[in-house]
Amino acid sequence: MKITGVELRTVRMPLVSPFETSFGVQRERLAVLVRVVGTVSGAAAGGDRKGREVQGWGECVAMEAPLYNSEYAAGSLEVLRRYLVPLLFREVERTGGVTAENVESVLAPVVGHRMAKGALEMAVLDAQLRGSGTSFASYLGAVRDTVPSGVSVGIQPSVNALLDVVGEYVTQGYARVKLKIRPGWDVVPVEAVRNRFGDLLALQVDANAAYSLADVRTLARLDEFDLLLLEQPLARDDLRQHAELATRLRTPVCLDESITSVRAAADAIALRACRVVNIKAGRVGGYLTARRVHDLCLANGVPVWCGGMLETGLGRAANAALAALPGFTLPGDVSGSDRFYERDITEPIVMDDGQVAVPTGAGLGVEPIKDVLERFTVATEWVQAD
Amino acid sequence: MKITGVELRTVRMPLVSPFETSFGVQRERLAVLVRVVGTVSGAAAGGDRKGREVQGWGECVAMEAPLYNSEYAAGSLEVLRRYLVPLLFREVERTGGVTAENVESVLAPVVGHRMAKGALEMAVLDAQLRGSGTSFASYLGAVRDTVPSGVSVGIQPSVNALLDVVGEYVTQGYARVKLKIRPGWDVVPVEAVRNRFGDLLALQVDANAAYSLADVRTLARLDEFDLLLLEQPLARDDLRQHAELATRLRTPVCLDESITSVRAAADAIALRACRVVNIKAGRVGGYLTARRVHDLCLANGVPVWCGGMLETGLGRAANAALAALPGFTLPGDVSGSDRFYERDITEPIVMDDGQVAVPTGAGLGVEPIKDVLERFTVATEWVQAD
Amino acid sequence: MKITGVELRTVRMPLVSPFETSFGVQRERLAVLVRVVGTVSGAAAGGDRKGREVQGWGECVAMEAPLYNSEYAAGSLEVLRRYLVPLLFREVERTGGVTAENVESVLAPVVGHRMAKGALEMAVLDAQLRGSGTSFASYLGAVRDTVPSGVSVGIQPSVNALLDVVGEYVTQGYARVKLKIRPGWDVVPVEAVRNRFGDLLALQVDANAAYSLADVRTLARLDEFDLLLLEQPLARDDLRQHAELATRLRTPVCLDESITSVRAAADAIALRACRVVNIKAGRVGGYLTARRVHDLCLANGVPVWCGGMLETGLGRAANAALAALPGFTLPGDVSGSDRFYERDITEPIVMDDGQVAVPTGAGLGVEPIKDVLERFTVATEWVQAD
Amino acid sequence: MKITGVELRTVRMPLVSPFETSFGVQRERLAVLVRVVGTVSGAAAGGDRKGREVQGWGECVAMEAPLYNSEYAAGSLEVLRRYLVPLLFREVERTGGVTAENVESVLAPVVGHRMAKGALEMAVLDAQLRGSGTSFASYLGAVRDTVPSGVSVGIQPSVNALLDVVGEYVTQGYARVKLKIRPGWDVVPVEAVRNRFGDLLALQVDANAAYSLADVRTLARLDEFDLLLLEQPLARDDLRQHAELATRLRTPVCLDESITSVRAAADAIALRACRVVNIKAGRVGGYLTARRVHDLCLANGVPVWCGGMLETGLGRAANAALAALPGFTLPGDVSGSDRFYERDITEPIVMDDGQVAVPTGAGLGVEPIKDVLERFTVATEWVQAD
Repeated sequence: MKITGVELRTVRMPLVSPFETSFGVQRERLAVLVRVVGTVSGAAAGGDRKGREVQGWGECVAMEAPLYNSEYAAGSLEVLRRYLVPLLFREVERTGGVTAENVESVLAPVVGHRMAKGALEMAVLDAQLRGSGTSFASYLGAVRDTVPSGVSVGIQPSVNALLDVVGEYVTQGYARVKLKIRPGWDVVPVEAVRNRFGDLLALQVDANAAYSLADVRTLARLDEFDLLLLEQPLARDDLRQHAELATRLRTPVCLDESITSVRAAADAIALRACRVVNIKAGRVGGYLTARRVHDLCLANGVPVWCGGMLETGLGRAANAALAALPGFTLPGDVSGSDRFYERDITEPIVMDDGQVAVPTGAGLGVEPIKDVLERFTVATEWVQAD
Repeated sequence: MKITGVELRTVRMPLVSPFETSFGVQRERLAVLVRVVGTVSGAAAGGDRKGREVQGWGECVAMEAPLYNSEYAAGSLEVLRRYLVPLLFREVERTGGVTAENVESVLAPVVGHRMAKGALEMAVLDAQLRGSGTSFASYLGAVRDTVPSGVSVGIQPSVNALLDVVGEYVTQGYARVKLKIRPGWDVVPVEAVRNRFGDLLALQVDANAAYSLADVRTLARLDEFDLLLLEQPLARDDLRQHAELATRLRTPVCLDESITSVRAAADAIALRACRVVNIKAGRVGGYLTARRVHDLCLANGVPVWCGGMLETGLGRAANAALAALPGFTLPGDVSGSDRFYERDITEPIVMDDGQVAVPTGAGLGVEPIKDVLERFTVATEWVQAD
Repeated sequence: MKITGVELRTVRMPLVSPFETSFGVQRERLAVLVRVVGTVSGAAAGGDRKGREVQGWGECVAMEAPLYNSEYAAGSLEVLRRYLVPLLFREVERTGGVTAENVESVLAPVVGHRMAKGALEMAVLDAQLRGSGTSFASYLGAVRDTVPSGVSVGIQPSVNALLDVVGEYVTQGYARVKLKIRPGWDVVPVEAVRNRFGDLLALQVDANAAYSLADVRTLARLDEFDLLLLEQPLARDDLRQHAELATRLRTPVCLDESITSVRAAADAIALRACRVVNIKAGRVGGYLTARRVHDLCLANGVPVWCGGMLETGLGRAANAALAALPGFTLPGDVSGSDRFYERDITEPIVMDDGQVAVPTGAGLGVEPIKDVLERFTVATEWVQAD
Repeated sequence: MKITGVELRTVRMPLVSPFETSFGVQRERLAVLVRVVGTVSGAAAGGDRKGREVQGWGECVAMEAPLYNSEYAAGSLEVLRRYLVPLLFREVERTGGVTAENVESVLAPVVGHRMAKGALEMAVLDAQLRGSGTSFASYLGAVRDTVPSGVSVGIQPSVNALLDVVGEYVTQGYARVKLKIRPGWDVVPVEAVRNRFGDLLALQVDANAAYSLADVRTLARLDEFDLLLLEQPLARDDLRQHAELATRLRTPVCLDESITSVRAAADAIALRACRVVNIKAGRVGGYLTARRVHDLCLANGVPVWCGGMLETGLGRAANAALAALPGFTLPGDVSGSDRFYERDITEPIVMDDGQVAVPTGAGLGVEPIKDVLERFTVATEWVQAD
């Protein structure tokens, strides 16, 4: 594909329920969208030698502030504008075109910034697949038409409030419940949820790196609640301590923040730092690498599941496709759009009986709805090759 | 110390010799400087109850583009302005002041961006030490008055050119020579240098992560040249493969990019991924953590040395102090200012007989020279608490 | 700081409750205090070129007889007088001054005698910090305003007596209870305390090296009582046997007497001889090395806590500062003065709701009260430079 | 044996050649001697029921200042007077007597101070053996009548001076030469000695803990000189680093300062920290423990040799007996008296053809000569039971 221009767009979408960070209350999701425009020729253009215009959409999952990882929306935008898009244009100029499959190596000179890179690769992949009439699911190797939808429940003001919230999600039919925990909010709420909703509830916890090895006694007390997994208990940059912890718990340890690449996943498995992996395409630099992490885990017998980053309908569609791969044997955070947004920028992703349908159309199978997109847009810029 | 304002300044300093990156030829060093202004009271102010004004300088070692790590000068500036300085002000407002020793924990909510954090901590530490009349060297625990100065030699157009360049540095008296290597430029140039300059030349090589385990036979051929160390042969995020490589080489493996924290150093040592560590304060988030990495390595019998990032006289002075700690038993990249700059922004750091003097004045012991600083400044902004 | 003189003072303080050793019943705490007097000049003296007089206090935690380690109060006094203080004076004469940060290397020619060395370093550090208006807590990098206070309970004449004693401490609000154990006084009393006070009591045991590997079955029986840790079960000089023991117990092994240096801590961790470390500044040669041990443990995910040596208010204040560092995730033995003394030589350190406040004043933040100090003093000598 | 009194005597003996320490030039050997007086009854007294008076001599090898280990002559004297002798008297009172074989356990409550303990045990053993007409050699299990005598050569002002000194010792017939080395005085002098005196000279080096793992390249260069061993290259308290070093050298690593007990020896062997052990009876707490270290090493195939501490004729005689045990397969530092003293306090130990005769008389087989002893005595005290 010959890329002719890239649109970088910042949107600000109201959230159904606000959440709090170190930098204040978050009532909106600030996200960077990437639209790649290019032309395909030859067979992909139905024999049209002049080439046919295609476009594809990508979504950068970086949050507004660098609290989950070092990326943040405005910073990702800047890196896209300043370094990544120019690298892509240079490659097109040098070789005449680019494919989704070589975006990663084209962008490799830039260290880190995986979410920004992943957004760009996603857009190129979307354009390429739309050009050839192939769906993300089909391209990635999906084996399911629908994927089970789990829900993630934040820290609540009280155990009673938590029970109410969980109760509502259970009623809505979510296939699995994940509770956020932190020191001081762990054994008691988990025990309460397990007691109230019984042994059949698929339940797991997410610690977001809030514990240390010193907390092993507390974490071991969770063993009795038959959890699917304990997610990222320790610091992101410590596989060795996770390995040590894992020897002292019965609950399987799952890693999220620590898994930033296929290599990191291979190391984590070799060091026995985890028995489950949460795959987020943005965190590892795109859906192609996400598939490679999946392949590696499958080969090693490590179950994976698909995490969520408050994606718009674009990322949500891609996640549903990814979660349909064979190694995704645990329910992911792929919920319906209405879990987060009253109005998504695409036709809403819908959860039905605890399942989300895997899109079947070409590319992502969904597109932004023009006027909704405009309504939420706060900035747009168009970058084109010299 | 009560911080009243922070100046963020971008300077652009002409380099003595340009170097090439993926984004073009670099003829200038673009750097972000941080100046913290505050007041100390009580004993630190000599009993002056109103408080005495102090200021301190920090230097962010991020390069112009995100090629060494994910940070880059303009991005670090943005993170300082947007997140780090506000966190510091918030702490001052909350508790009445801040010390260099708690800057790291105050900035901890922001993930990554260690070079930006390190610059801010350095400025606070400088102010604090100037306030108490203590030098960096004394505070950090230096045990030497001078530190040996090594030189790093980039890839050259030919072996003959390399021999000329090395010959000149040897004549200048550098205590150790480091050659950059990459696939295709390794055994031959190293052999040529060893042959020309003999067994007594302290020689080491730096691979900047350009190799893979598949290259072990090539790397093993370096064993015969009695190198001090082989620096960062493999990818930054792979301690396990470095450990595997280390079992197959006699030359000690040294890590640079991989060591981003005390924990990373502890892991690398435990996994036997390295036998030497290159400490760069910016890479680990500041001089306090650099000291911790040093202490950890010393306790484990792992020699360390001080790497360089084209620092101005400010960072160069701090590095000389750091390199004077007892565990720095290998010569570092702490050269004189004229290695890189015809005109430094401070009184130049001078190499004499292969040694650089450790500054003894309060704080960094050096300060920018006003008119030189202004000449190189391309932007300045003043941030103050609300 | 230029040191002009050192006062070595022996005090004898009545204990609230006597305890028995191989050499008889101990009704008083014999302790050696060090007072360093010197002058600071330059910025630290508020610009006063003549210099400003400062003084600082240190406390040597050696017991009256060499039963905990090879040091004893009178012996430490002798080593201070004969070797350590002269080394310090010699350094001042040679270089014009000394800093707390280089006391350790100045005293390095003398082997061992870490408690004596630590007392001298503590006094220099206190003087230096008073000179600059910095608190021990701030300098060491404290992150807490108060620290939880645990209590250590000696061998009692009967289980009933033990239950009474523990009951009283629980009522007083101590955050954690440590029971001394020895062969014949282990499983039964621990079980009794666990049964009486329930699962929520934070409970640990200290064996003071009284067991051997042959006792592994007895020690394994403690596993069922959910202890925080088992302290120093085997001989001080055997990391390897501790490592062997650790593989056969669920209760985490903690080391005390064995950890005499940062290197010893590094070895213990590498050999997996312990999962917790008790840090006593005197045992490792001072608060600067204590901080290094803390940093090392933190990087390795090994929780630490602060042990006690019947300190006067001086050492107690310093311990509270140390215990406020981030890696001190287990409650220490930092209790209020009245746990041991009816009258402390400083304003008493007070436990409130199971917590001791971290002093905030310059240096230690406390000073001896002149007439109380005189009352308990049994000998004083003044050593000054030739 | 019932002990009735213990004489503690300090002697000051002129050295043939002075040597320098951190505390000045040493022209005399200050040593503490112990004389135990007691009575034996029963068979040991030849049937005399009243008992027969016996006496025995011990020598404390602590140096004048705590530079080799933490003990020093005056400190050892104080610990003997204050703690060790009283423990012995108490045991005699409690049980009616004491044997050399239980001195160690009687003194066990006191931690450390092994040289002082060893002196007391040696005196009791000497008395006991004199009482029963048995020689040290016979009691310890000697298998040789003479032991080869090696010489230890200090740092010299120049390589030429060194060659002269070594030449003289070679002429005198010493069976082995040990060179002290330190950074800056290692490869060059060792090479010079090897070149001058040829491959047949039994040569070894002693580093007295002056190196670190950072020096491995220098130490590895010694590999080519076919040394018997490299003694104590690294810090005394680091078996793990010695183990690491040992994997990188061909020269066998020998430990001295690190081996303070049978357990330490067992650990060193298990961790592969050494392949040879230097046994000094004082360092491990006496000749009985020295024999145990020997037994352990013999069982593990680790050669041992007998180190020297400038002993008088008393200690020198005991060392000759110890060195006659079967595991002492390397020449030790057991030289003739005239290597150090113009006048020894006993009949001089004589080296003949590179060998020293193992004494055959009862006990040590030698005794102080009254008037010589008095001439060198600087203080004497007599301690008797209450």
